[in-house]
This record gives sequence, structure tokens and C-alpha cells, in this order.
Amino acid sequence: MNDEDLLARRYRLLGKHSPLFYDNPLHLVRGEGVWLYDTDGKCYLDAYNNVPVVGHCNPQVVEALTRQAATLNIHTRYLHENIVNYAERLTATFDDSLSMAMFACTGSEANELALRIARHCTGGMGIIVTDFAYHGNTAAVAELGTGFMPEAINAINVRAFPIPDSYRGLNSLQGAELAEAYANEVQKAIDSFTEAGIKLAGILVCPEFANEGLLKTPPGFIELAVERVRKAGGLYIADEVQGGFGRTGTHLWSHQWDKVTPDIVTLGKPMGNGHPMSAVIARAELIDHFGRSSMYFNTFGGNPVSCAVGMAVLDEIEQNNLLAQVTEVGAYVATGLRRLGEKYELIGEVRDRGLFFGLELVCDRQSKEPAVTETKRLVNRMRDRGVLLSKIGRFDNILKIRPPLVFTHQHADLLLTTLDEALASL
Amino acid sequence: MNDEDLLARRYRLLGKHSPLFYDNPLHLVRGEGVWLYDTDGKCYLDAYNNVPVVGHCNPQVVEALTRQAATLNIHTRYLHENIVNYAERLTATFDDSLSMAMFACTGSEANELALRIARHCTGGMGIIVTDFAYHGNTAAVAELGTGFMPEAINAINVRAFPIPDSYRGLNSLQGAELAEAYANEVQKAIDSFTEAGIKLAGILVCPEFANEGLLKTPPGFIELAVERVRKAGGLYIADEVQGGFGRTGTHLWSHQWDKVTPDIVTLGKPMGNGHPMSAVIARAELIDHFGRSSMYFNTFGGNPVSCAVGMAVLDEIEQNNLLAQVTEVGAYVATGLRRLGEKYELIGEVRDRGLFFGLELVCDRQSKEPAVTETKRLVNRMRDRGVLLSKIGRFDNILKIRPPLVFTHQHADLLLTTLDEALASL
Repeated sequence: MNDEDLLARRYRLLGKHSPLFYDNPLHLVRGEGVWLYDTDGKCYLDAYNNVPVVGHCNPQVVEALTRQAATLNIHTRYLHENIVNYAERLTATFDDSLSMAMFACTGSEANELALRIARHCTGGMGIIVTDFAYHGNTAAVAELGTGFMPEAINAINVRAFPIPDSYRGLNSLQGAELAEAYANEVQKAIDSFTEAGIKLAGILVCPEFANEGLLKTPPGFIELAVERVRKAGGLYIADEVQGGFGRTGTHLWSHQWDKVTPDIVTLGKPMGNGHPMSAVIARAELIDHFGRSSMYFNTFGGNPVSCAVGMAVLDEIEQNNLLAQVTEVGAYVATGLRRLGEKYELIGEVRDRGLFFGLELVCDRQSKEPAVTETKRLVNRMRDRGVLLSKIGRFDNILKIRPPLVFTHQHADLLLTTLDEALASL
Repeated sequence: MNDEDLLARRYRLLGKHSPLFYDNPLHLVRGEGVWLYDTDGKCYLDAYNNVPVVGHCNPQVVEALTRQAATLNIHTRYLHENIVNYAERLTATFDDSLSMAMFACTGSEANELALRIARHCTGGMGIIVTDFAYHGNTAAVAELGTGFMPEAINAINVRAFPIPDSYRGLNSLQGAELAEAYANEVQKAIDSFTEAGIKLAGILVCPEFANEGLLKTPPGFIELAVERVRKAGGLYIADEVQGGFGRTGTHLWSHQWDKVTPDIVTLGKPMGNGHPMSAVIARAELIDHFGRSSMYFNTFGGNPVSCAVGMAVLDEIEQNNLLAQVTEVGAYVATGLRRLGEKYELIGEVRDRGLFFGLELVCDRQSKEPAVTETKRLVNRMRDRGVLLSKIGRFDNILKIRPPLVFTHQHADLLLTTLDEALASL
């Protein structure tokens, strides 16, 4: 079937609003490692997809999936070793206080559960997020989607603070003063809840501020913000759906770059390398308190197949020393991107942590006017040249690069060369 | 590892409130068809689990899962044939008006999405459910959980009507008069929204009223209730998470027993035979309208692996003629259960549709006092005798039997004989 017919059928069956990438959508049929193949056999370097964290169709993960799916797949109201072994292995990677796990299937479900726990345990309803946040597609988390979810408009239990952005800044402040200024914005959100008679439940942020554009945040901001939130009786929920599982190198979890331990952490996307699974990791007393006053059961969450898959992903990260590889290759890519930044005025700022990169593209480095058209064109030209990446941010002008973690120097060279060519072609 | 140690570790890692079946939890290691095996190799007839609809570890389903997981697993922002083919095959099994699909991972997510669509399209927030409902574990659907979710208490956008129960009834009415009386209860819910200035979005019910105790509803009730809801501008959302995929025999979807077509249908549990997948099937104009004003993307929903698995499940149902088998074996089991009903005073009523059975156990057939202790004891004795089933309902006195659809006469005989023995032993 040709792509035109397939697209017409897709529109008829899924509607015209089911999101698709690229001006000319890509019809994929196969994946392997960092490579994706279309119907013509053309291969693409995947520098976008963070879900297949240990590589597309990772054989060890597929093997674990197959073996357990052929043995037993059942919900968690029976005893099974997989969920216990996996929960033990997973929680061991967190600070001691984060000792208990609950399993679900998607990042949205994990964030929903985190909100339910935080709200039950604090007795408050108020949640603080950034003013360009996205934490999922269900109603309660859609209310937190200040980026582009209609539910976020007038959501009574949500307050947003400006994204803590060292590049675009606030009142020309820098460093510690800027961190303090953004923390004051969080305080304003807290005060606004107080004035409205809404008790605070907590703050929910991605420690990497991935959807906000992989921000370079002023150092110490998170610590200051969480201090204010806790003083007001709220909890710190870290959304590791994008930043987790080694994405940022050095640490398995992106919040571990900061000097404050969350009360609740949510995991998703890369957890099963594409298999639908997610989790909430939290302080034991929070999960116990929630369990006493409420009920949570997830038919598929924590089943033996998902846990076998999750274990295989952790095995692959560990056995292939991916944290070290991410740190090393990530630094290599970052150096290359900075070199491109020197060559092309379009690149306003290069942001990097591990294998997570944001390139803020601007029409003018002084005015910092977002280069929206150029960013879109660049993403499409990269696709035509066989490298997949995307864009993000309030103005859609931040190039988003986050390949599978099995990315090597060779892949990095191809990415950088192609990006150089595509930038030159604009 | 012995069960005691495993249980202790589970409590430590998942908390004490993570639900477990049976006084003496069952430690399972293997499944095949309708059979489950524990660590001692003891085998259990599974007369409870509706998720493995085409049998535990169905080889064709595992094969489809494995093949696609080894080829490509990716989100739906690229073109892929699987999602289009599966959506086409799936929607073809519904009435013509239900022509469009959206994919998610769990029944909770499907119901969340259905609510978001209904609320966007009607501009209303009010949802009507039964007064012993459960539709999932996320915040917005927890509000509908009038059965046992704390969020349902004082939920401002939810109204409940009494479960439409021919057994316990309402004001001694029967038949058409009873249907009318329950429809009047739905009208009261509509009127209550009007009085509160809350616009109606719709009614959400499982057409089999599974969690309410697999009710025998007065004939014509659904049609009357939906008529009233539509007259007030609301939509009919049918939750097929439990009743769907052939469970009730004859029809693939349980709402097809009624003379009214829903506006939105939600699917879940058996859809992937245990693989986490779910969907919303709806009228095209609703999905289009929702898509225009809102955004929905689900990272795992509709991926090529899930769609391959879903297709294999439909293949198995079709190729093995399971609808006919469900109807035939279901009728055979029902006859056997009625025979037990004649033998044991404890059985107040036998309810059946396809391979879905509810036995209401009562201390006294006149007073209909729920036999709560006996029901619990019976479930545990059945487990000890090697047959798995469970209980449900407001008083936890309704035996719930819903085996995988590959259940045969031979399995039925074992179920009936064992139930006879267990009943005699009480």
C-alpha cells in the first residue's frame, strides 16, 4: 500500500488530529539499535526517540519479553517473584528514603497516581508547575499542561511559575540571584493558593525541564523552590518520565544532579524500551498512608511480563556501561554542537546533559527572537537527509536531540555532519 | 524463595495495601489456556480471569507479540500499517456510526479519554453513573468510583442512580414498570445537575453492570435511560472493558444486546490478552471535534506491537469460533449453576450471559440477606480445591465467574463439580 492511501485510511479511522511528524510523514517498517528503516529500505539515524533507551528491538529485551509472555502474564493480586525482584532492584537505585514502588502502564498514569498520593497525604489540592508544562493526557494531568492543554486554562487547583530559564532570564538577573528570583515566583504561586484558601499539595516538575526546552536552570533553583514548597506543607514530585533511566549520564535519575531528594518520583517512557510500563517511587509512609485511605489497583501494572522487560532494560544499561557511554558520547556531541554554534549565528544556545540536547535557534542573538520557521525547516531537512530529531519549547524553536543511549561516536559524527550540512542549506 | 519471605519482601517494597487475593495468597509461576500453576506444580482451573480472553500464554498471540517486538516498536507519529489495519478491523465490528478509534494502554486511560471527549463535545461536565460503579484508578474516573473510591464522595460533577437490579428491585415493581422506575432515577440525576447549574456530558455504564454484580437489569432500561440522557443533551458512553471481546457470546460487544448504539465505547482488559492496550471507539464527529479543540497523544497507545497483538486476539476469537463456543458452553454452565441453585438455598439468584456468571448468595431467600461470610469462605475453598473465582457487589456476596473464553464442557464440568463440593462443605 502506498503512503498516500495509508494516510487517507489513517485519517478516516483515527481522525485528522492524531499527531504525525514531518511535512512528509515517515512510513517506518523496521528498527535496530539507533537505526530506523522506511518502506523503501532507506535508513535513518534515530537522534530523537528516548523510549527505545537500549536501542530499537534490543534482542535481550525482546528475549525477556518473549520468554515471560510465553510463561505467565497475570495481574498482581497473586504472588509473583518478578514484581518483587524488580521493585527491589529499581528502588535500590534511588536515595534510601525512596523505598517503595507502585506500578502502572504510562507516564500519565504515574503522574495521576503521584497527584492522588500527594493530595491524599497532604490533604491539599494545589499543584505548582511551570507555565509551559506537559505531564500527560488524562484529565487531572491535562490540567497541569500549561503548555498547550485546554484543560489547564482556569484549572482552579493549579498555579504556574515562569520557566526557570537562564537564557531568556528574568529582570537581567544571573546565577544565584536569578535562582532566588525564580524561587520567589514559586513563592508567589504558594501565596496565591493561600489567598484562594487552597491547601498546597506540592510542586511537580521534570528536573531537566525537558518539555520547557531542556532549560539551563540557574544553579540552586530546585533546592530553593523545594524548600519553599516544603515549608508550606507541600511535596516535591519529580517527573523522570523523560529524564530518567540514564538519559543524563552519570546518574540514573536526573533529580540526582540536584541536592534535594524528591518525595515522589514518576517513571515512564524508557522503562520498558517501548513496552507500556511506568511507576511511582515514593517514601514508604506516603504510599502506606495513601493505601490506608484509598484503593489502587492497575490490571496491567507490574505484571510479570512488564517486570521481566523492565529488569532486562536495567541489565542492558548496567552490563553495557551505558551511564559512562552517555557521559562520554554526550560530551563529544556537545562539543560538536558548540562548534556548530560558533559557525552558525542561528544557534542561540546549546544545552546539554548526557545524551539530551536542546539547541535554541534564534533570528538574532541580541533580540533572541525565536527562529520558528528555520527550526521547522531544519527538522524536515534533517529527516530528508536521514537523521531524525524534533523541536520543542514555547515557540517551537528549540531543536530536541535525545537518541537511544546506545549512541556511539560514529553515530555522533553522522549527526553532527548532517546537522552542519542542513544548517548550511537553510 | 518461600512464600512467606516473598510476601514480606512484597510488603516492604509495594506496601501492605497492594491488593492480594485469598486468605492464603496464591504464588503462580505458569499459565496455559485455562490453567494456572503454582510453585508446587499444583494446577488451578482459571474461572476468574477475563484478561487472557483467548487463553493464558496463547501461542499465536505470543508469536505476534514476539515477531513485531523484534521488528519495530514505535509511537504513532510515524506512519505504520498495523494501527490502520487494526483500527479498520476493530471498527468494522461495531455499528456503522462508531467508525473512529483512539488508542491508549489501560481501561482507566480509555475512560479518561472518553470523559474528555464527552465533556469537550457537549460543553458539559456532568457524568451519570450507578451508585456502585468502578471505572478506573485515575482521578477523574476515581470520581466515578461510587463503589469504593474516596474521590467519589462529594465529586461535584457526578450523580449516581441506584443500580438497576431486578433481583433486589425498587418498590416491588417488575418488568417494564421497573425499567421505567430506574429510568426515572436517571432522570432525577439529570434534574439534579440542572438544578445545580451543571451541564450534562453523559451517562457512563458497563452494559453488563459487571462491577455492580452482573445485574439482571429490567428489559428496556438502558434504552429508556439513554433516551432521557440524550434528550438532556448528554452522550451514552458504554464501558466495554469487562463486557467486550466476546465475553457475553453471540455479540462481540455487550452493548449490542441492547437496542441503542452508544456514542462512545471504551475497550480494555482482554484487548491484548494481557498486553497493556485499550481504545476508545466513537462517532467520527466526536473525535474530530475533540481533536480540533484539544490535543491527545499517547506514547505507547496504538504502537505496532500492541496492534499486532490486538489483531492476533481478534484472529483467535474468529478462527476458533469463540463467540459460538461462549454461547454454547456458557449455556451449559448456566444450566449447571441453576441446578446447584435448586440444590443449595444459599444461591439466591443465578445470572448469566455468555461466559459471565454472577451467583448472588443469600442467607435467606425471602429476606435476601447477603451471605457475606459464606461467599468469602466459598471463594477460598474453591481455591483450595483448585478452581479460581472471586466475588463482587456492594455486599461482596456475589460469586463472580468469568473464565477465559477457551473454556470447554470439560472445564465446565470440573467447575460445577468443584462448586457443588465446596457448597456442600460450607
